[in-house]
Amino acid sequence: MFGDNKLCKMLNIKYPIIQAGMVWVSGGKLAGAASKAGILGVIGAGSMKLDVLEEQIKKAQKIDSTALAVNIPLLYKLSKEQIDLAYELGIRIFITSAGSPKLYTKYLKDKNCIVIHVTSSAKLAKKCEDAGVDAVIVEGFEAGGHNGRDELTSLVLVPQCVDTVSIPVICAGGFYDARTFLAGLALGASAVQMGTRFLLSQESRAHEKYKSLLLNEPETSTELVMKSTVPVRLFKNKFYQEIKELENTCAPTEKLIEHLGKGRAKEGMHLGDLDNGELEIGQVYSSISDIPSVEAIVQNIVNQALSLYQDLNPTPNESHT
Amino acid sequence: MFGDNKLCKMLNIKYPIIQAGMVWVSGGKLAGAASKAGILGVIGAGSMKLDVLEEQIKKAQKIDSTALAVNIPLLYKLSKEQIDLAYELGIRIFITSAGSPKLYTKYLKDKNCIVIHVTSSAKLAKKCEDAGVDAVIVEGFEAGGHNGRDELTSLVLVPQCVDTVSIPVICAGGFYDARTFLAGLALGASAVQMGTRFLLSQESRAHEKYKSLLLNEPETSTELVMKSTVPVRLFKNKFYQEIKELENTCAPTEKLIEHLGKGRAKEGMHLGDLDNGELEIGQVYSSISDIPSVEAIVQNIVNQALSLYQDLNPTPNESHT
Repeated sequence: MFGDNKLCKMLNIKYPIIQAGMVWVSGGKLAGAASKAGILGVIGAGSMKLDVLEEQIKKAQKIDSTALAVNIPLLYKLSKEQIDLAYELGIRIFITSAGSPKLYTKYLKDKNCIVIHVTSSAKLAKKCEDAGVDAVIVEGFEAGGHNGRDELTSLVLVPQCVDTVSIPVICAGGFYDARTFLAGLALGASAVQMGTRFLLSQESRAHEKYKSLLLNEPETSTELVMKSTVPVRLFKNKFYQEIKELENTCAPTEKLIEHLGKGRAKEGMHLGDLDNGELEIGQVYSSISDIPSVEAIVQNIVNQALSLYQDLNPTPNESHT
Repeated sequence: MFGDNKLCKMLNIKYPIIQAGMVWVSGGKLAGAASKAGILGVIGAGSMKLDVLEEQIKKAQKIDSTALAVNIPLLYKLSKEQIDLAYELGIRIFITSAGSPKLYTKYLKDKNCIVIHVTSSAKLAKKCEDAGVDAVIVEGFEAGGHNGRDELTSLVLVPQCVDTVSIPVICAGGFYDARTFLAGLALGASAVQMGTRFLLSQESRAHEKYKSLLLNEPETSTELVMKSTVPVRLFKNKFYQEIKELENTCAPTEKLIEHLGKGRAKEGMHLGDLDNGELEIGQVYSSISDIPSVEAIVQNIVNQALSLYQDLNPTPNESHT
C-alpha cells in the first residue's frame, strides 16, 4: 500500500518510508531491521571510523540486504573513504548531506549508484537536481539534529520542493505515525523519512537511559539553537541550558564553539550522559510513548494509514442549508 | 466533500475551512465572501473600535450571513463591549484568543453561542476544553501573527491536541492549498484555518502594496521574533531588521517595546508603509502566487483535494521482491 511509486521501485522498498541516518543512533542493527521490514534502512556514517563503518554495514547485511543505504555527511574528513568502503561492501544507495551535492554525485552515478541529497529549501533542492541526484530529502524546522537556517516547517517546505523539482521528494521532520505519514504523502512527497520514531525503537543504538528520558519527559520541549554557528535542535537538558545562557547573553561565537567542545553528541546519545551530553532530537519525541521493534512500527503505520485513508473518504455534506 | 463532520454541522459550513480573523485584514467584505463560499467567515475585531466593528459586521451580513464569526483578542480593552455588540447584531459564533478561555466562555454559552478558543499547545487545549469551549483552533509555529513560545509546528501540534481533547480541533499555521488542506485533515483536524491564503485574496483589507510585495518577494523569508515580549512572525522588511538588530545585540526588553511603538501593524498591513510598518504573515506566503476571489480559492482547494485524495489511493506494490 502507498508504495506504488517510482521511488519505491528505485529503492526496492515495499513501503515509502525511510529510516533516517542518525549519528550515534543508526547502526547496522537498526538499518538491517528496517530493510527487513520493507523500508529503506540507513546507516548513519557521520560518527564512524572506517573499521566501525565496515562492521556496521556487515551487521546490517547479515540481517537483511534488500534496501540498505549509508548516510555520509560530506563535512566529515573521511567521507570519500567512507563512500569507497561502502561501495566495496556492496552498498549502492548513498545519502549525502552537509556539503555540496556536486562533490560526489557524478562519481557515484558513474558507478551506477543511487544518490539522494539532504537539503532544507526549494532553491537548494533545485541545485541537487541540477547536480544529478536521483531524489532529495527535504528536512523541515521540526526535525532533530542539524537543520536549515530558514526555519521553514515541513508543511511549507515540502510542497515548495515538490513544485520546484521533478525528481522524487522525500519529506523529513515531524513525521512519526500513520497520520503524519499520510500527511507527508498528501503534501506530495514520494516517501516519508522518520528519525526520532526509529531512535525510539528496540534496534536503535541510542543509549537506553536516553530512550527512557524521552519517554518520561514529554512536556519538556526541544529548541533549535546555535543558529550563529551550526543550527541544531536539542532536548532541553543541562547542556542545552548552558548553550542557551551563552546565547541569551550574546556571548561571542568562539565561546559557544568552545563550550560545545568535542564528542558531546556521543557522550549524550550513545553513552547516556543526559546532563552534559548533546541530545539531538526532533519535536515529535513528545508525541511518542513506546519503544517497539522496527517491524511493529512499520506495520502499525501502514495499517493505520490505510484505515485512516478510508475514514477520510470525502462524502458531500448534503445537510448544508 | 470532506465536510460531513460534527464541526461543519455546528458552524453551518459546507467545507471544513475557516477564514482566519486577522487584525487589519479580515473585515466584513472578506468574512461575508467566505460565508458565501461555504466556509466560516471571521471578522478580526482586534483593531476595531465599536463603530467600526458594527459597520464591518453589517457589511458582512449584507453579503452573506450563513456562517459568520467574530475573533476577539481578549487582551484588547474593549473585548467585552465587542462581544456584546456582536451578539446584539446577531453573531452567534465567537472565536476568542490572547487571554484565558475561562473569561467569557460561560457568559457566551449561557447565551447559546458557539465558542472557539485559539491556543498553541495540547496542555492549553485541554484547559480550553475544561472551560467549556466547543472547539479549539491550534496554531503552529509557521503561522503568521502572534504565536506560542514552544515553537511546535502544526505537524507536531495537531496530532498532540487531537489525542488530548475530545472536542473538535481546527488546525492553523502552514495551510493554504489542497495538499496542506488534506494533510490537516489527515492529522486529525476537523477543519483547517487559513490566514495568509485569504490575506492574499481580492476581498481582504490588506493594502494592495502589501499584497504585491508578498507576491513579488517569494524568496525573502519570515521569522518569529520578539520572543522575550510578544512573539510574532514578521516579513523581513526594514522594521523587522531593526527589531532583529536590537535582539542580536541583546538590547533590553523596554527598548524593543519602545521601538515597536504603536500602530505599526496598521501602518504596514493596512496603510501600506512597507518599510516602517509591522508586516505579520505566515511562512506560506512564499508558496502563494495569485490573488483570487475567496470563492475561487475555496473551490480550487476542495476540487483539487478531491482529485488528490483519489491519487493517493493505496495500491499494494506487487512488484516488491
